[in-house]
Amino acid sequence: MTEFSIGVDLGGTNLRAAAVSREGKILERIAVDTNFEGGRDAVIGDIVNGVNALKRHFAGARLAGVGIGVPGFIRLKEGFITNSNNLPYLENYPVRDAIEQKLGTPIILENDANAAALGEKWMGAGKDVDDLVLLTLGTGVGGGIIIGGRVLHGMDGMAAELGHMTIDSSGPPCGCGNYGCLEKLASATAVESLAMLLSLSAKPMTSREVYELAMEGNEKALMIFTQMGRALGIAIANLINTFNFPLYLLSGGMLPAWNLFWPHLEEQVKLRSFTYRNTKTAIKPATLGNQAGLIGAAYLPFQAIDLSH
Amino acid sequence: MTEFSIGVDLGGTNLRAAAVSREGKILERIAVDTNFEGGRDAVIGDIVNGVNALKRHFAGARLAGVGIGVPGFIRLKEGFITNSNNLPYLENYPVRDAIEQKLGTPIILENDANAAALGEKWMGAGKDVDDLVLLTLGTGVGGGIIIGGRVLHGMDGMAAELGHMTIDSSGPPCGCGNYGCLEKLASATAVESLAMLLSLSAKPMTSREVYELAMEGNEKALMIFTQMGRALGIAIANLINTFNFPLYLLSGGMLPAWNLFWPHLEEQVKLRSFTYRNTKTAIKPATLGNQAGLIGAAYLPFQAIDLSH
Repeated sequence: MTEFSIGVDLGGTNLRAAAVSREGKILERIAVDTNFEGGRDAVIGDIVNGVNALKRHFAGARLAGVGIGVPGFIRLKEGFITNSNNLPYLENYPVRDAIEQKLGTPIILENDANAAALGEKWMGAGKDVDDLVLLTLGTGVGGGIIIGGRVLHGMDGMAAELGHMTIDSSGPPCGCGNYGCLEKLASATAVESLAMLLSLSAKPMTSREVYELAMEGNEKALMIFTQMGRALGIAIANLINTFNFPLYLLSGGMLPAWNLFWPHLEEQVKLRSFTYRNTKTAIKPATLGNQAGLIGAAYLPFQAIDLSH
Repeated sequence: MTEFSIGVDLGGTNLRAAAVSREGKILERIAVDTNFEGGRDAVIGDIVNGVNALKRHFAGARLAGVGIGVPGFIRLKEGFITNSNNLPYLENYPVRDAIEQKLGTPIILENDANAAALGEKWMGAGKDVDDLVLLTLGTGVGGGIIIGGRVLHGMDGMAAELGHMTIDSSGPPCGCGNYGCLEKLASATAVESLAMLLSLSAKPMTSREVYELAMEGNEKALMIFTQMGRALGIAIANLINTFNFPLYLLSGGMLPAWNLFWPHLEEQVKLRSFTYRNTKTAIKPATLGNQAGLIGAAYLPFQAIDLSH
C-alpha cells in the first residue's frame, strides 16, 4: 500500500475513523466515545487524536487526505457546518480550517447522509451505477443524491433534504416547520410516536420493540409499517419521476423492518410512477451498513485527487 | 454570421422552426400548420421541408445542426420517441436517423419541456445560473431540469416528469395511473375541470374564461387558483429540498394567472421548505414565452459541439 485515506464519521454519540486503501479496503479502524458536552475544542481534539492515531500505523504511506462526515449542512466553500442538531457549537465556525491547521493534511467535510450515499456508490450496493439516491432511515430520514459519481450539493450544500419531502400536506408537524414530512412518517421516531398514538403499550416503546411486536403479528404494529412503506413509496415514486436514475437505496436502523414495509412501498411506487413500471429501476437495501459513511468520507480525498487531474 | 443552428418545436397543432445564431438571436422563423393526421411520413416531410426552407436563407453560413423538441420521452441513444400522446405514429421508430438521412445534417431530439428549460438557461430567465428547474403550466404540467448547464435526462430520457409528482395521495386520478399528480391540480385542464366541479357555468369553460372570472372577483374561480398555487407550492418546496438550486421557473399558458396563484404558492413554499426560508432561492416567471423550446432546441447542436471540444 502506497497511498491511503482517512474517513471520519461524527455520529450522535461517538466518533469513528478508519484508514482506507485506494481499493476501498478498511485497513484499520477506531471508535471513540466523544464527550460532545465538552464543546468545540474537545470534539476537534478527538478528531485530531483519532486521525493521528491512524496515521501512526501507516508511517511509510502517503495520506491522500481526511474526509469527515457530519450531521448538518456543510457550507463547502467556507468549510462551515450549519444546522447541526448534535453539534451546535461547531456551527458557523471555520471547523475545516481549524482541523486542517492542526493536522497539516487536506480536510473535506461532507454531510453524513451524502457521505453514506457516496460510500455505497464506491464500495456498496451502488458500485455498478453512477447515479443513485440513498434514503437513510434512522432517528430521522436523511438523503444523499449521487449524480455522475459525485454528491449533488446544490448551491448551499443543502440538496437532498429528502426527509423533508411533503408526503401528506396535512400530516404530522415537523421541526422544520412543515407538516407531513417523510421523516415524520418513516423514521424510527415516527414508528415510536405512532406506537404511542395507537396505545400499543402502557409505556413508550422503542422502534425495535414495535418491530418485534409486528413480527409477532400484532395488527396495530403492522399498521405502523404499512404507513411507513406507503410514505416511502410515495417519496421514492416522486424521486423516480424526477431523476429516472437506475437505483434507489435504503439504509439505516430501520432497514431490518424491510420485509414489513416493502410490500406497501412497492405497491405505491408501482401505482405512482409510470417510469418505474416501464423501466429497469431498482429499489434495494444498501449493503455497507453503518460503515457507508466512513467509507464514503474516506473516498472524498481520493475523488478530489482524481477530479483535479 | 458564419455559423447558425436550426431549432424545431413540434407542438400539438403546428410545427415551428427557427434559424438561430451562435449568440442566441432568432434570424428567421417559420410556422407550418401540420397535418398530424397525415401520419409519420407527412410529419417528417414537414420537418424536412421547414428545415430546408430555413437553410436556403443562409447559403453561405455553416449549419451546426438541427435540434428538435417533441412532446414525449426521448430515447437518446436510439433516437426514438416513446409515449407521445400527440404523435403516436412516431413512437418506436428511428425518427432521428430518418430525418438525418433526408437532411444530411446532425439531428438532436429533445423532450419539449427539457428544450424549453435549456432555452431559458441559454437566453432567458436562467441566463445567470447553471442549475434550474422549469415547470411548464399548459394543458398538462411538464418539467425540465438543468444541472451544470445541461439537461438532466436520467437513464431512459424520462427524468423531470414533474407533472406526475404526487401532491395529494388521494387526489384526482391521472392518466399516468397515479392519484393527485401536480398536473391534475395545476394545469389548464385542471382549472377547467375544477370549474366544472364547482358548476361555475352551465357549459364547459376554458381556463382563460375561469381566469377572467377570477379577475372579476368570483370567489369560486378564485378558489381554483388558490388550489393551483398550493399544489405548485408543495411541488416547488419538494424540488427546493431536493436540489437546492438557485432558480425555479414557471412558464406556459397559465402564466398570466401568476398574480392569482403566487400568494398561495409562496405561502406553501415558505411553510414547507426550510431551505427556501434560509437561502437565496428565486421562483420566477420564465421570460421566453413560447419561444423557449425553439431556442433551446436550436442550442442543442451548439452545446454538442462545445462539449465535444
